[in-house]
Amino acid sequence: MDNAHMIGVVESYMRAFNEQDMSIIQAMYASDAIVEDPVGSDPYVGYDAIMAFYEGAIANGPSLSLNGQVRCAGNSAAFPFQAKVGDLTINIIDVFEFNDEGKVSHMRAYWGPDNMTQG
Amino acid sequence: MDNAHMIGVVESYMRAFNEQDMSIIQAMYASDAIVEDPVGSDPYVGYDAIMAFYEGAIANGPSLSLNGQVRCAGNSAAFPFQAKVGDLTINIIDVFEFNDEGKVSHMRAYWGPDNMTQG
Repeated sequence: MDNAHMIGVVESYMRAFNEQDMSIIQAMYASDAIVEDPVGSDPYVGYDAIMAFYEGAIANGPSLSLNGQVRCAGNSAAFPFQAKVGDLTINIIDVFEFNDEGKVSHMRAYWGPDNMTQG
Repeated sequence: MDNAHMIGVVESYMRAFNEQDMSIIQAMYASDAIVEDPVGSDPYVGYDAIMAFYEGAIANGPSLSLNGQVRCAGNSAAFPFQAKVGDLTINIIDVFEFNDEGKVSHMRAYWGPDNMTQG
């Protein structure tokens, strides 16, 4: 998988939230994708479940920004970022796995209570 | 999985490299573990293969330091860090998956050429 493509998808993912643009999310996911957000919770399986999850997530109005390099390896990209919703900041690491068509086939979000700060 | 345990293992992993202490690596891995470093390369499967890999890696003398929070989710911990070998710096994200005994059963390291800087 081409690193420039994967980094581009990560950057457009930030923009999808910051501009509340669901069309970016719609274009990036494979039809049979799986989303674990956070890892350890029940996964969202398949396109429709994933889109419903993101419609809710984007409606909360979080702003996202990378706070470290995107790390590309094999068909995956891992990246650290901050999500801010009101005065709540969450430090997250996402891992995107890509299929041969360059669509995200598996997304895992790593974050928990220790990664939240208020104010 | 207890977050404090997982964070402790991550911190001791940094120390294993910085103090060239293989006993830390020996204690943290499950006998049937898998290591992908970097993701996309042939995995190291099983305890002996993994120990041989780390003996070589630690002998290179890299110093490791976290450059962001450890993100714990479910039975996993994801963390961003820097590895410095001579004047080469590599930005890496590792993901540790833990088994019920608190041992690392799967390790994935995300890094590539874009994450290396010299000088």
